[in-house]
Parts: sequence; C-alpha cells; structure tokens
Amino acid sequence: MKIAIDAMGGDFAPVEIVKGAVKGARDNQVGIILVGPQEIIKFELDKYPTRDLDIEIFHTDEWLIEGEPPAYALRNKRKASIALTVKLVKECRAAAAVSMGPTGGVMTSALMILGTLEGISRPVVGGAFLGLTPQTITMDMGGNMDCRPDQLLDFAVIGTVYSKKIMHIENPAVALLNVGWEEGKGNALAKAAFPLLKKSGLNFIGNIEGQDIASGKANVIVCDGFVGNVAVKFCEGLGNGLAAWLKNELKDDLPSPRLQKVVTKLLSLTIPADTTGGGPVWAVDGLVFKGHGRSQSAEVAATIASAKIYSEIDIIGALKNELAEVRLRMKTTDV
Amino acid sequence: MKIAIDAMGGDFAPVEIVKGAVKGARDNQVGIILVGPQEIIKFELDKYPTRDLDIEIFHTDEWLIEGEPPAYALRNKRKASIALTVKLVKECRAAAAVSMGPTGGVMTSALMILGTLEGISRPVVGGAFLGLTPQTITMDMGGNMDCRPDQLLDFAVIGTVYSKKIMHIENPAVALLNVGWEEGKGNALAKAAFPLLKKSGLNFIGNIEGQDIASGKANVIVCDGFVGNVAVKFCEGLGNGLAAWLKNELKDDLPSPRLQKVVTKLLSLTIPADTTGGGPVWAVDGLVFKGHGRSQSAEVAATIASAKIYSEIDIIGALKNELAEVRLRMKTTDV
Repeated sequence: MKIAIDAMGGDFAPVEIVKGAVKGARDNQVGIILVGPQEIIKFELDKYPTRDLDIEIFHTDEWLIEGEPPAYALRNKRKASIALTVKLVKECRAAAAVSMGPTGGVMTSALMILGTLEGISRPVVGGAFLGLTPQTITMDMGGNMDCRPDQLLDFAVIGTVYSKKIMHIENPAVALLNVGWEEGKGNALAKAAFPLLKKSGLNFIGNIEGQDIASGKANVIVCDGFVGNVAVKFCEGLGNGLAAWLKNELKDDLPSPRLQKVVTKLLSLTIPADTTGGGPVWAVDGLVFKGHGRSQSAEVAATIASAKIYSEIDIIGALKNELAEVRLRMKTTDV
Repeated sequence: MKIAIDAMGGDFAPVEIVKGAVKGARDNQVGIILVGPQEIIKFELDKYPTRDLDIEIFHTDEWLIEGEPPAYALRNKRKASIALTVKLVKECRAAAAVSMGPTGGVMTSALMILGTLEGISRPVVGGAFLGLTPQTITMDMGGNMDCRPDQLLDFAVIGTVYSKKIMHIENPAVALLNVGWEEGKGNALAKAAFPLLKKSGLNFIGNIEGQDIASGKANVIVCDGFVGNVAVKFCEGLGNGLAAWLKNELKDDLPSPRLQKVVTKLLSLTIPADTTGGGPVWAVDGLVFKGHGRSQSAEVAATIASAKIYSEIDIIGALKNELAEVRLRMKTTDV
C-alpha cells in the first residue's frame, strides 16, 4: 500500500511533513509518495535514514498558498501539489491522499478530481468534536450550509458507517439535533428530515436537544453544517473561557503543576476528541485526509496511520453499500 | 403602578406565587392584581400581613394546565388566568403581566391579546444566557425557527434597546452569528442578513463565529431561534458534564465544601446569567414577563421588580422609536 502526501501543505511544510512521512512510513510499514519540488524534498529526506523505506518523490513546482481562493488557484495551478496528491488516488497509484494544506484547497481538489459518492452533492465534515463524549460524532460540522432533508439522511448513513467501522460501535444510535424531543418540532429542515430518518432502517432514536450533544445519548448527531459549525466552535470557545476562569479560581487551592494538569484536562474535554491526526473528507469517492494546518511530524505520522486503517477496512466500499441499502429501503417503503 | 400576576401559573402555584406577590408588593411598593380563584387566593393571602399593601384579586375559575396545547386550551378557556392577566395590560389596568405558567400559554396569550409591535410577526426570546459573558445577549433563543433576514434585523434592534436601557451599555456591539468572519460567509439567511445589518445604523461589528459567543466580543448576537436554542441548551448540557467531571477530578484535592463551591460556580457560568427572575416576552405590544415554571416566591418577587423597572423606563416606547428609526434609515439608504 502507498499513501500520497502533499509535502507542501501546512504551516510547517515541507520540513515537518517530510519528517512525519518518514516516521509514518516506518511506524506503519507503508509506502509513501511525497508530492512537491524534487530538490527541496530530497534535501529534507536526506536528514533521515530511509534506505529501508519505500519513499518516492513525485515532482511538481506548484503548490497552493494559504488564503488563495481555492477554486481559482486550482484552475491556474493545474500541477498544484494537493491536486497531484489527490490525482494519485484517482489513478489508483495511492490508497489515500494526505494534506495539511488549506481546507478549501483540499476539499475542492477532492471534489473536482474524485467527485462525490453517488447521490451526494458535496463533501461532508464530521467527527467526534467533544472530548467529553468521544463516542458521539456530529455531521455536518461546516461543509454544507443550507441542507436538504435527504442530505441529513446521507449524513446519518455516513455517520453510522463511521461509528461501526472506525469506532467499533455495533448499532450506532442516530439522532436529529432539534429544539424539542417531540416529532413535529423544529425548523422546516428538521421537520422534513425526521420522517426520512424514521423510515431509513438506521437505529434512529429521534430528536435530541442541545444539552444532549454533551450527554452521549447518541453516537451520530445529524444537523446542517451551519448549526454544527457554531456548536463545535462555541464548545471550543466555552472551554477556553472556563479554563481561564478555573486557572484563576483555583490558583490558591492547588500547586501550580497540578492546576496546569487539571486545566489541560478541561481543555481536552471541549476540543475535538481526536487531536492526534487528521480526518477524512467524507462523501468523496476516494480517501482524502485533511489534518490541521499547524500539524507537526507526529500528527502527520498519525494521519498516515489512520489513512492506512481506513484503506484496509475499505470504508469507501462500506459507505457505498450502506448508502445503496438505505436508498433501496426508502424506495420500498415509499410504495 | 399595578402589576398583574397569574396566580395559577407555575409548578408551585398558587402558594409560592401569592407569597412572592406579597413580597414583591412590599419590596417594590407597587400595586398587585392577583388573577385566579377568589377563595383559594384569599386563603393564601390571609397567611401574610397585607393590610398596608395594595393587593387585589381578579377572580376566575379557569387556568391552563402544563402540557395542554396552548392555542386550543385558550380557545376553550376564555377566562384562563394567564389570558385575563394579559388582558389587564391590554386594558391599561396593569403596567405589566407576570406568569410562571407554561411558555406556550404565556406566549400565545401575549400574541393573541396584545399583538406584536408593528412590522414584527412573532414574539422573540432572548437574553444573556451565559454566566461567563453576562454583557452578551443572544436573540432569538427559540421563538422563531425559520427566520427571514429582516427578522434578524428586528432582533438586532430589540437587543440594542435591551442592552442600552436595561444593561446600560452605551453603544451595544451587534454581531451576526456565522461560520466565518468574512462577509459572504454562511447560509442563505446569514448572507442576506449581513447587508441589512450593515446599513441599519446600529453598531454592527460584522460576523462572529461560535467561539465568540463565549468571548464577550459582542453585546447583541443575532441568529435564528433554532441555532440560538441549540446553543443555549448545549451550553447548559456542557456545563453539567464538566461540573460532574470536575467534581470527580478534584475530589482528592479540595475539601468537600470548597469543591462544592467551585462546582456551583462553574454551573453558574454556563446557565442563564439572570436566574433571579423571569424575562419579558419581546416584541409584543405590552409588558409580559415569563418566569421559570419552578419559580418560588423569591423569583416571583424578583420578576415583579424587573417588571416595575421595565415599565418605568418605558421600554416598549423605546423599542417602537428605535424600530421606526432603523426602518426610516433602511428606506433612506435604499434610495
């Protein structure tokens, strides 16, 4: 198995990306294709012993810069490192693509080159965002602003497959984020999505309210990307605010190292559960992983490890199957 | 000044309502009209010395029960205590109405009997929901699910008047809750509301993201009631989750009373800033206050105190003026 890596994406590219790629290759015993300028990458690679590793360089002189409008930039830089990295997946020369570059560039490349899974219009962003409830994932967290009811059904399917295959939850509980638990509550989207989820054959437990994002009642919470994005960021903001308060409140109660530990733990409960590596761009027809722009070598290596696992269990195949099954079920119950 | 009180609304009605009304009358030197069954209320009133207070009973044999569909119940119980309480405001026999009864019943009565302010279609729910940032109010928090852009502008006006008049903030900063700070970001509603807010003449500081709900950057955050409701409840749920964690985490570090104090403080930072009394139903043409169903006499008295202040500063008049001014400004800039 080979994994393609955008050597020029991320705040610490190419230095930390190449370092992480070498670590990822060794730790996971996978082949690596580093995409970027030959000489620069070779210079970085030469810092490490790599004779026993399967690492190659795929040369290009172009890459995206943070802040460039992605669609425009990708039209003008046809050989941008992120585009070529994704293309290696499209051409089956790599099992997965990994980039720490700008979100827009990664999403747009994935969408343009691989396309979405049948019947899905746009990529989906989702995952476990709350350390307090690591068994709960939220979809969408910002990929799709104004959603149609059937998109929320797609999110539920993707979330269910993710929970089953990656988090090993046998029968994931799916819930619709809403303003009340009764059917018929909510905005037009929630009202229309409820009956679709009800007849989907998924383990739909009904509506949940905001407080249940933090209760662990559901494994998969579906909502439009606007609400999801606000919730994720609010959580992080609230965590920072409470951490600052706690630090001050307990400064005379606890010795400094112990206090620091408690504050760090509090922060970890309010930021994404999985901070060790990047997550996949969901609903595109191929594996593309996007990590934080500020990733260092450890995160790059961790993302490579994830990419290997996702590829081995063929999550894209599982997604296609579950989507097809749910659609068949919806059709049958329509009659 | 007289304040009308729904003696039969609330989990502890009429006992705690009457007790609170007596306290409210004495503390604030206002007249009180208790609406409910004469004999029952008289029995409660006789428990207290009230000879020097201006308290009267307005008799009715009907009242709403928690869980009744409000519109239906109010059609069948034309003399329901909440309806008659609000009617006293409509007829200028009371300066404000106060109820701890079911939200739906209070909102529906206010809407049916008083109507909304000119140009506003539905009541608005808003206030400072985060103890961490008591100078930040969010509108709407659940009254309006699918909003039009001009409704968000109305929320901004109401919030501005509230901040100025009640919170004494000179030039309240208004922000649009969104998924990014740049103009053009967001769902269709946010994109359409941004230019309206921009030319409103209010102190519009632009978009804010979820993390800024907890940062205090804005005094008035506007959003649709679906997003607002999810944020408020998520905050409360997260507070409870973190409090439970902290209690366990620090059990060997702090003596029990001190730990309890810290945990209580944490909870107070994640639940509504103002837990002492009820808040007004915004955007109806008259003062109607709704308190928590579980309110005891202290909360009832505190709500009476708020009602007196709102009436004295004529917040409804201030709202009408500001709404008219903003509308004039929007028309002028249209040309």
